[in-house]
Amino acid sequence: MKYDVIVIGSGPGGYVAAIRASQLGKKVGVVEKAEIGGTCLNWGCIPTKALLKSAAVYTYMQHAENYGIKLEGEVHPDMEAVVARSRGVADGMSKGVQYLFKKNNVELIPGLGSLTANKTVKVVDAEGNTTEYEADHIILATGSRVRQLPAMPIDGKKIISYRQALVLDKLPETMVVVGSGAIGSEFAFFFTSMGVKVTLVEFLPNVVPNEDEEVSKQVERCFKKLKMTVMTEASVTKVDTTGEKCICTIDTKKGEKVVEADIVLSAVGVQTNLEDLGLENLGIASERGKIIVDDYYRTNVPGVYAIGDIVHGPALAHKASHEAIICVEKFCGMDPKPLNYNNIPGCTYITPEVASVGLSEAKAIAAGYEVKIGKFPFTASGKAAAAGNKDGFIKVVFDAKTNKWLGCHMVGENVTEMVATAVLARELGATGRDIIENIFPHPTMSEAIMEAAAAAYGEVVHL
Amino acid sequence: MKYDVIVIGSGPGGYVAAIRASQLGKKVGVVEKAEIGGTCLNWGCIPTKALLKSAAVYTYMQHAENYGIKLEGEVHPDMEAVVARSRGVADGMSKGVQYLFKKNNVELIPGLGSLTANKTVKVVDAEGNTTEYEADHIILATGSRVRQLPAMPIDGKKIISYRQALVLDKLPETMVVVGSGAIGSEFAFFFTSMGVKVTLVEFLPNVVPNEDEEVSKQVERCFKKLKMTVMTEASVTKVDTTGEKCICTIDTKKGEKVVEADIVLSAVGVQTNLEDLGLENLGIASERGKIIVDDYYRTNVPGVYAIGDIVHGPALAHKASHEAIICVEKFCGMDPKPLNYNNIPGCTYITPEVASVGLSEAKAIAAGYEVKIGKFPFTASGKAAAAGNKDGFIKVVFDAKTNKWLGCHMVGENVTEMVATAVLARELGATGRDIIENIFPHPTMSEAIMEAAAAAYGEVVHL
Repeated sequence: MKYDVIVIGSGPGGYVAAIRASQLGKKVGVVEKAEIGGTCLNWGCIPTKALLKSAAVYTYMQHAENYGIKLEGEVHPDMEAVVARSRGVADGMSKGVQYLFKKNNVELIPGLGSLTANKTVKVVDAEGNTTEYEADHIILATGSRVRQLPAMPIDGKKIISYRQALVLDKLPETMVVVGSGAIGSEFAFFFTSMGVKVTLVEFLPNVVPNEDEEVSKQVERCFKKLKMTVMTEASVTKVDTTGEKCICTIDTKKGEKVVEADIVLSAVGVQTNLEDLGLENLGIASERGKIIVDDYYRTNVPGVYAIGDIVHGPALAHKASHEAIICVEKFCGMDPKPLNYNNIPGCTYITPEVASVGLSEAKAIAAGYEVKIGKFPFTASGKAAAAGNKDGFIKVVFDAKTNKWLGCHMVGENVTEMVATAVLARELGATGRDIIENIFPHPTMSEAIMEAAAAAYGEVVHL
Repeated sequence: MKYDVIVIGSGPGGYVAAIRASQLGKKVGVVEKAEIGGTCLNWGCIPTKALLKSAAVYTYMQHAENYGIKLEGEVHPDMEAVVARSRGVADGMSKGVQYLFKKNNVELIPGLGSLTANKTVKVVDAEGNTTEYEADHIILATGSRVRQLPAMPIDGKKIISYRQALVLDKLPETMVVVGSGAIGSEFAFFFTSMGVKVTLVEFLPNVVPNEDEEVSKQVERCFKKLKMTVMTEASVTKVDTTGEKCICTIDTKKGEKVVEADIVLSAVGVQTNLEDLGLENLGIASERGKIIVDDYYRTNVPGVYAIGDIVHGPALAHKASHEAIICVEKFCGMDPKPLNYNNIPGCTYITPEVASVGLSEAKAIAAGYEVKIGKFPFTASGKAAAAGNKDGFIKVVFDAKTNKWLGCHMVGENVTEMVATAVLARELGATGRDIIENIFPHPTMSEAIMEAAAAAYGEVVHL
């Protein structure tokens, strides 16, 4: 069987590549060993957002009186229903991709795909049958899986990853979450909101350690307000799961601590899925677990491409999808603009939400920029007051010489929907003056972007 | 007493003008006859958003099971508490402006201000004492008040305006809301959410009649789903308030109808506050209720300026604030960019929210553009599915010749926080290609902007 394009992996890199290639007239097959849509749709972005929405509703109900709503009775989460809703949303999105495949004549090839020495794709299906497919263009988009630490081997029961955390239909009383990146922070927040006593352990000096330090500090304050225990500069050196509880030994700034928990959630990052891909059969070059590609995702072997988590850059769905489009458009003879890796936003969907793009203050200074910094707290925002969500701020970093917008760092309600304003404006070359002069609608929290820019230039009105 | 600058009116035009002038070294006084902050802070934007948040929380509680949250008991709004919260938020914002005045050495002059033939400002305070003030620059920023129709004279009890609607501490059983602009729609939605049986009467063919027709149709569907009665191409010709109920005679497409209601809310627009301003003493030119100004808000009388609702353009807080800054910076010797009146966003904070900027499809075509239209429904958005808010869409209008972004029309959860992306990108000259290539974070509803743009160019992946 021969295709124009075969994609291995149907996550937000793979399925987007397949659909775009089909739009451009190619005959396309997608090899997928598990659920259509990959981790993002089935075990990542989407089902977690569903859980977090349930947490938000539960939290509102617990604080209904603050909004003038009287609750006479009891309210509690029904975890089976919460999880069922989340799985339903994920399944719906996965079915949506299947529908898009059908609509675009993309053929699904179930099974484990790998490269052969003849530059074909070998697919082993669930029954163990092997089929070989030829293709002019082979796109590798196999993504990543959970990374494991030797001190915390995941057993799926007491030491779990995001996979099991997504389908925990009974709440533990206590939990240790290890790692406070987006995944760890979201689960720590979710389970805390649901009433679990959570200890969050972060190896680095700050939670959400990829963010601007002021954002991290704000998140830590919010976590502590929820009675979460936060340990930074700390690492779990041992988990004893032989008894009823997990006994975690944690190295902290203040010496060794022992924390008991029903469940330990390991969220210490991901590792790329390269092992079973047959890279060695074609001599495809990689370094430090990432396949080496050029601006158009071409590997060192002509006709073989790689996108998404398995290449350089952050392991984010939107990055993979854009790489997919660039990769496909290029080999279809179009002239796509290479991706600007300095302008990829990141989001963490806790409350308050975190979103950012570009350089933090510290990174801008480290890169040699003379900076202008502005910050506007939501305590001074009318919309935030009206909505009862005054935690957080927007911080902007400008280049003092060119006035270019180097970075935007947001923590607050709905900021994940606002960060695109910064991304697009930065791509279009916005300066501080452009932001200050722009009419943000009132009353919104997005006005804080303008106020922060005005603060950077000593012109802020509302502070 | 002599000031550099006197501002009459302390709304979002006036107070921003005062603070900016003070920042630029001017000695500033602000004349205000009522609450500091004007209608926006005290009787408009801010307290309505507080009420609407209470409605949102109440709605979540009524549908808690959809999110897996069990409610055993009863839930109902405590209108006294809802209103008290709203008033508290408004008072807090008003105090915030007072704080900003103090911090910026802006002097508050309580009383009713007007112009004299000597180009001074006469202020009559609550006790009837009159003081005259000189100023090099006098900024008129007196805003607007509710417009009344002869068929519905507002008595404040049975026929009310937004003013009384904001402090109704007991819910009526039935209500007729006349006018479906932002104010009418927000109150109709709020009271419906609170359990009031609402009939919304709109004179024009569509609700939220300033919006793109597809947005209006979506809003009408959502209103009807909430069991609101919506009458378009209808007008109230008579309200009989002599009995216990209001008997409303309504001219409709299908003939005359009679609707009984406990309360009629008149929301048929605003009219400018020009009457007591002494314009005639200086011969300040106005037409159709608006003072005539140039690009820098200079009236025909040197040293007298006008901004906000009392000049041309939409009666919106953010428009007034920007005019304030441009006006002040200009007479302080700076060179501000004139306001682009084609790029002022508008928002309506119902559920789903409505936000838009630029030309609707119909207006773009009427203006002679050959258009490219793209639309992306939130039913196809992963974030919308996860959040359980799939109503609505984003629609974009591009100029087919230049690919410039003519308009963006949004209806859906949180779109009021997203529309700034379109405003700023349009100001920076964004084309369809810029939007398609931009990395919107996943999973967000803001991705729908990109998908809609891709749809306009036949490149949409997720439809």
